[in-house]
Amino acid sequence: MWKSNGLMTLVTDFGTVDGYVGAMKGVVLSHAPTAAIHDITHAIPAQDVGAAAWCLGNAVPWFPEGTLHVAVVDPGVGTDRVILAAEYRGQVILAPDNGMISFLCEPGKGGVRALKPDVRASGTVSTTFHGRDMFAYAAGLLLSGRSELLELSDPVESWVDIAHPPILREEGKLTGAVVHIDRFGNAITNILSRDLPGNETRGMVVSCGTVELRAILPSYGHAEDGDTLALSNSSGRLEIAVREGSAADVHRIRIGDPVTVRFI
Amino acid sequence: MWKSNGLMTLVTDFGTVDGYVGAMKGVVLSHAPTAAIHDITHAIPAQDVGAAAWCLGNAVPWFPEGTLHVAVVDPGVGTDRVILAAEYRGQVILAPDNGMISFLCEPGKGGVRALKPDVRASGTVSTTFHGRDMFAYAAGLLLSGRSELLELSDPVESWVDIAHPPILREEGKLTGAVVHIDRFGNAITNILSRDLPGNETRGMVVSCGTVELRAILPSYGHAEDGDTLALSNSSGRLEIAVREGSAADVHRIRIGDPVTVRFI
Amino acid sequence: MWKSNGLMTLVTDFGTVDGYVGAMKGVVLSHAPTAAIHDITHAIPAQDVGAAAWCLGNAVPWFPEGTLHVAVVDPGVGTDRVILAAEYRGQVILAPDNGMISFLCEPGKGGVRALKPDVRASGTVSTTFHGRDMFAYAAGLLLSGRSELLELSDPVESWVDIAHPPILREEGKLTGAVVHIDRFGNAITNILSRDLPGNETRGMVVSCGTVELRAILPSYGHAEDGDTLALSNSSGRLEIAVREGSAADVHRIRIGDPVTVRFI
Repeated sequence: MWKSNGLMTLVTDFGTVDGYVGAMKGVVLSHAPTAAIHDITHAIPAQDVGAAAWCLGNAVPWFPEGTLHVAVVDPGVGTDRVILAAEYRGQVILAPDNGMISFLCEPGKGGVRALKPDVRASGTVSTTFHGRDMFAYAAGLLLSGRSELLELSDPVESWVDIAHPPILREEGKLTGAVVHIDRFGNAITNILSRDLPGNETRGMVVSCGTVELRAILPSYGHAEDGDTLALSNSSGRLEIAVREGSAADVHRIRIGDPVTVRFI
Repeated sequence: MWKSNGLMTLVTDFGTVDGYVGAMKGVVLSHAPTAAIHDITHAIPAQDVGAAAWCLGNAVPWFPEGTLHVAVVDPGVGTDRVILAAEYRGQVILAPDNGMISFLCEPGKGGVRALKPDVRASGTVSTTFHGRDMFAYAAGLLLSGRSELLELSDPVESWVDIAHPPILREEGKLTGAVVHIDRFGNAITNILSRDLPGNETRGMVVSCGTVELRAILPSYGHAEDGDTLALSNSSGRLEIAVREGSAADVHRIRIGDPVTVRFI
Repeated sequence: MWKSNGLMTLVTDFGTVDGYVGAMKGVVLSHAPTAAIHDITHAIPAQDVGAAAWCLGNAVPWFPEGTLHVAVVDPGVGTDRVILAAEYRGQVILAPDNGMISFLCEPGKGGVRALKPDVRASGTVSTTFHGRDMFAYAAGLLLSGRSELLELSDPVESWVDIAHPPILREEGKLTGAVVHIDRFGNAITNILSRDLPGNETRGMVVSCGTVELRAILPSYGHAEDGDTLALSNSSGRLEIAVREGSAADVHRIRIGDPVTVRFI
């Protein structure tokens, strides 16, 4: 069972200007004054669960065992939605049950629990700020060692999964989709690099809308400024990018657009 | 008298891109290398003292005793304005005397001191960056234990209060105002939840401009998407919101707009 | 030779929303769990090396000896560009060799090394995310004390310098240029305050485009709201500002615009 290493991270859509993130940090530090709190982001677009899931998928795998991640993008706050405590390689993510753990946990594999409904700061629970009164409170208890994950939570069988568009595999052809546009305008797909043969082995044509590319380059630096390229990115996914530009803007690529790889 | 617990927070309108916040952190850490510095925000709109006061009011109450908060939104930098060291429940806020402590401290209740004018980094004091040369320097001295608050400051009798619009209480009716719009566009009022009877006890009508609402809901989740609602928010205040939308945008609500509650 | 004090800072153009900065923090903490990581900024405009150099120039000098600064604004990622490990007064900056250390290090003065090309996380190196796989990995090794700077790097003779426009010195006149516009719209020049006599000693006229100013004021607070002023700023440079306004917007000042000081 998970044991805290003293490290905690935060992912929210609160921005920082209203002081709500500050309040959460205050609650954690009131219970666990030596907690090392590391901001991942507070800039998730308001209530954009998909963006938060993507962010967690990029960041969480790199933290050491024992880290606690607190992720609050929570359109269902105040309703009966459950707060998950999901294990991922010796770490724990506290997040509303709305799909945010989809890039980290696989349905049916276990390791996902739910906070007991009575885990909430006594006397101060508001119905609208569970980030402070439930998430930060539970995090403080766990980081201080005052409570164990086992006593604060129960196992759950199922949870919300944001289904990635499935990949269609045909003879000599893969069809996937754009699943994320990052802040540089790079279009990231659900096609994994490991499903693609190297350029040396076999030719291929990558298509997305009007874009057609005949090679997968090793990095942005191998294209000229303004050129469009396909590459195998740092998350191990096929990506369509424009060197020193925005593929999303230049080619009007959007999340959900189909992407095809033909082997020739 | 206040004693540091090693925790410090920062609230500024500097943004981070120019490196000025970095310089402040550097100064603090040069004097107190083990200080745990926690960002509350650097995104206060430039010179918006009201927004900074609101942010501090939301965040400070949740930190443990002994925390030092350094808040620099300072249109008067370089003039003779005083730097306050205000006590709030065993914590201290360093801030220019411009109203930033208004949501935390009450005039006439004592506990507010002013830094002695000679508390400034020797040799390096610029007239334009007191955040670095006075605030961070004083914070470093206090966090390192090298100086006591008592020797760095003198008590002050009065300080700038940003008067909240007073609430008008008439038979069967309360009239207040919108005092803050948060980043989600929620309109927060100066009417405290504790001044309102529960819905069960008595009916009421909340009005603001063209908005008229006949109940106070327990949370956003109890309204339909796009619906306007009144709720008692996480700061204990009456708030007007649009579920998954911006009340400020939809209803053109602005800070200062009057809000009425009629009991029926 | 540099020895870590346990403190690390981060300067990037990644934003935080994609989780890439989170991944970097995770890598550092996996190697050095007690590292104190302090954000300077993640809001450098995409690939704006000049802005990053300016930010580092403002922040780095204020940190204590032994601090490690990791700065990743890296249009050349994936190419053969070198990663520098530059010493500055007992601190080290890890940065791509693209000019980012220009405000801190002077060509020909020594103290600049380059990471050996084989310093990269084994098995996980992507060609596009050196921030995580090389910078954060090297930082983790250095902060944990597992590796010495000496064994990870070799000295280099030359590196990219972003030449500041040279200052033209004529009888009774200095001509320089605007080298940076900060987020308040203040226009900062390459003319150092120490090259200017005090107002008391000698009269002077500062000109930039249509702006003509007859005195250097001690601070913003000495001008009226909306007035344009010249001042000696907190970085020790001549600056043109508008009190509670943006000099860049009001006077259409841009980086590179010439600035003249005539002594009268």
